[in-house]
Amino acid sequence: MAEVFDKHILKNGLVILGERMEGVGSVAFGFMLPAGAAQLPEGCCGAANVIGDWVFRGAGDKDSRQLSDALDGLGLHRAGSVGSSHIGIGAALEGGNLAEAIELYADIILRPSLKEDQFELARQLAVDDVLALDDDPRQKVMLKLREQFYPSPLGRSTAGAVEELKTLTAKKAEEIVKSNFNLSQTIFAVAGKYDFDALVGQMENLFGTDTQKSVEPITAALAAGQYTHIKSEGAQVHIGLMTETVKATDEDYYNARVAVSVLSGGMSARLFTQVREKRGLCYAVGARYHGLKEAAGIMCYAGTTPEKSQETLDVIMAEFNRLSEGVSEEEIQRAKVGLKSSLILQSESSGSRAGAIGTDYYMLGRVRSLDEIKDKIEQTTVDSVLDFLRSNRFRDFTVVTIGPREVNV
Amino acid sequence: MAEVFDKHILKNGLVILGERMEGVGSVAFGFMLPAGAAQLPEGCCGAANVIGDWVFRGAGDKDSRQLSDALDGLGLHRAGSVGSSHIGIGAALEGGNLAEAIELYADIILRPSLKEDQFELARQLAVDDVLALDDDPRQKVMLKLREQFYPSPLGRSTAGAVEELKTLTAKKAEEIVKSNFNLSQTIFAVAGKYDFDALVGQMENLFGTDTQKSVEPITAALAAGQYTHIKSEGAQVHIGLMTETVKATDEDYYNARVAVSVLSGGMSARLFTQVREKRGLCYAVGARYHGLKEAAGIMCYAGTTPEKSQETLDVIMAEFNRLSEGVSEEEIQRAKVGLKSSLILQSESSGSRAGAIGTDYYMLGRVRSLDEIKDKIEQTTVDSVLDFLRSNRFRDFTVVTIGPREVNV
Repeated sequence: MAEVFDKHILKNGLVILGERMEGVGSVAFGFMLPAGAAQLPEGCCGAANVIGDWVFRGAGDKDSRQLSDALDGLGLHRAGSVGSSHIGIGAALEGGNLAEAIELYADIILRPSLKEDQFELARQLAVDDVLALDDDPRQKVMLKLREQFYPSPLGRSTAGAVEELKTLTAKKAEEIVKSNFNLSQTIFAVAGKYDFDALVGQMENLFGTDTQKSVEPITAALAAGQYTHIKSEGAQVHIGLMTETVKATDEDYYNARVAVSVLSGGMSARLFTQVREKRGLCYAVGARYHGLKEAAGIMCYAGTTPEKSQETLDVIMAEFNRLSEGVSEEEIQRAKVGLKSSLILQSESSGSRAGAIGTDYYMLGRVRSLDEIKDKIEQTTVDSVLDFLRSNRFRDFTVVTIGPREVNV
Repeated sequence: MAEVFDKHILKNGLVILGERMEGVGSVAFGFMLPAGAAQLPEGCCGAANVIGDWVFRGAGDKDSRQLSDALDGLGLHRAGSVGSSHIGIGAALEGGNLAEAIELYADIILRPSLKEDQFELARQLAVDDVLALDDDPRQKVMLKLREQFYPSPLGRSTAGAVEELKTLTAKKAEEIVKSNFNLSQTIFAVAGKYDFDALVGQMENLFGTDTQKSVEPITAALAAGQYTHIKSEGAQVHIGLMTETVKATDEDYYNARVAVSVLSGGMSARLFTQVREKRGLCYAVGARYHGLKEAAGIMCYAGTTPEKSQETLDVIMAEFNRLSEGVSEEEIQRAKVGLKSSLILQSESSGSRAGAIGTDYYMLGRVRSLDEIKDKIEQTTVDSVLDFLRSNRFRDFTVVTIGPREVNV
């Protein structure tokens, strides 16, 4: 599939990116607003979640109900997220309705009503959402793992902390919106069916008036490996494990991705084979690359019975450490095929592409074509992956468990 | 997007369906094997899960490891599911690798190794998977709801029952594979990039040899409304609620779908507005249509704090009952736009389309085009939806809760 990328930067710094996809009728768009969990002032953990809800409770001349009616009237499927660096708000919808949707999102971003009674409802729901994590230990262990692995504030919980949510005020949250919905640091990405000239004209009218503001980059050193156990009376032990690796800007990035794929890229990958196929230790086991702009790691999850938890962790750590001892040509080939196949499937989804080009721009300052990624994957070899693994041995493992039984790390 | 459907039926009854999608490089395929939870003999609840794992542990001349290697070597992304009627096994992959993948799946379906040591591992993992539901009350409440709502065996747990899994033997599971992997009742669906003539030729060679067998249809009457509470020490009360509605073959089917969309089609829909926006009762609330061939219902989930659980249930049931009192033209319009927008997004995913055409054929005996569905949605009106709601009032509600507190139904 030939790729056509579009790019335009408004005077205030807002970046507009697009990827045209032939033969699709839909379009997906997303605003990346620099108000992610790590960007917030101390003591406001969870504010991004409250804000992501609050701004949709009325904007411009519309109250909460009228805004919901208008958004649903366009048939848009909302997609929202809170990450370390950004709040993402966006949607997928029929291409013909894009301009009307952007109009509404300009109100939401620039002119949210931010009424105090609506704040209270949004805040309470965010508190309930954090409490509900106790019923979702799989998600909870991975949030806690990021908190333990990344140095503060990078790993700060994207869900929030109950005590900080309880003391959050509407005034404070409004200040965050004012300072963090900073258009100079905002990336807008669109993929699918759209007219770029018309879009840029509209974006200039709607968003081109703000002045430029700068943002301090976050600096932080990686935390050392450590073990944290959260006692629960649940049925399983949920294990989260993470170890440092290279960032997306590193020349060894693709070697790291192929190495993770050898470990956990499919049914034939080592973790699945050793933990699930051979030993029947658990159904759910998998590792993946997890990167921020400032630091990156390989993240692994396994959920298992208390009796099998120690063996499961031991096998996983042994497999991590065994990687640098050698990988076969066949393993590298399968890892490459798997990564390239994922790219093809991703290339056919407007939502995936809008997310990917926005993230690329933030992480790398440019958008990679799928062909470039494919070529870089193709260029990895047994030797390049082993060289990488040997000069970047896994040293410290950060481990978090939730369940009725502790493990020895 | 113009749709091109393909259809061919082998002499033994195996149905081959295809939807060609222009401009995509991927293909998705799935085999619907008549071995779903409701199709199994009494006392074997969960056997479908064991079998869905076991058949991948070696087939044809390949052992478990070799089979995994071969599948991953094609870069395929597996998709598997166990439903009431079928085990679904399939994948999405690069179009050029389809023929090789079908070759491997013929071995998996017709010549699985079914080794006893591998059975033991698959069985134990299935047991662990059921036990793990205690850590996932949201999924557990909906499984239990289907069990309570649909008459036995239709609602039988697709995860399984621990005591029945513990007594399941390799011999019994093998008998189920032999009798239920019945090609006469199997539907194969493919969507994306493929060559139908070549595919049919290959399917005939690989699957055309079996003789025709018949299957007894399942007959069962709907259970009456009832309340079930499962005590747990979790943080939330998880509420599942279901009430009878028309099946996919009914002339009122699209009126039912639009009615559900008025209730729960987006942010402006009634449940979301009443439960979340106005009262802040919970983040997670939603209703959807759930249909089997034999019976159908509207299914609703909400997760909330113990203190708010009674009010949440009361508001939800009030909203169900209030529907027939009147719906506005604007609500119907938004519901239609939302449903049509979902269709467009679905039309661009090869995986969604392969699943949809297979299910259509099983439920209706034919495949609906997206234009037909769009027209039928378009034809609904305030009057047609209200007529439907008034002549099909919600009578009995089946309710299941999991949590530290019961509710009054």
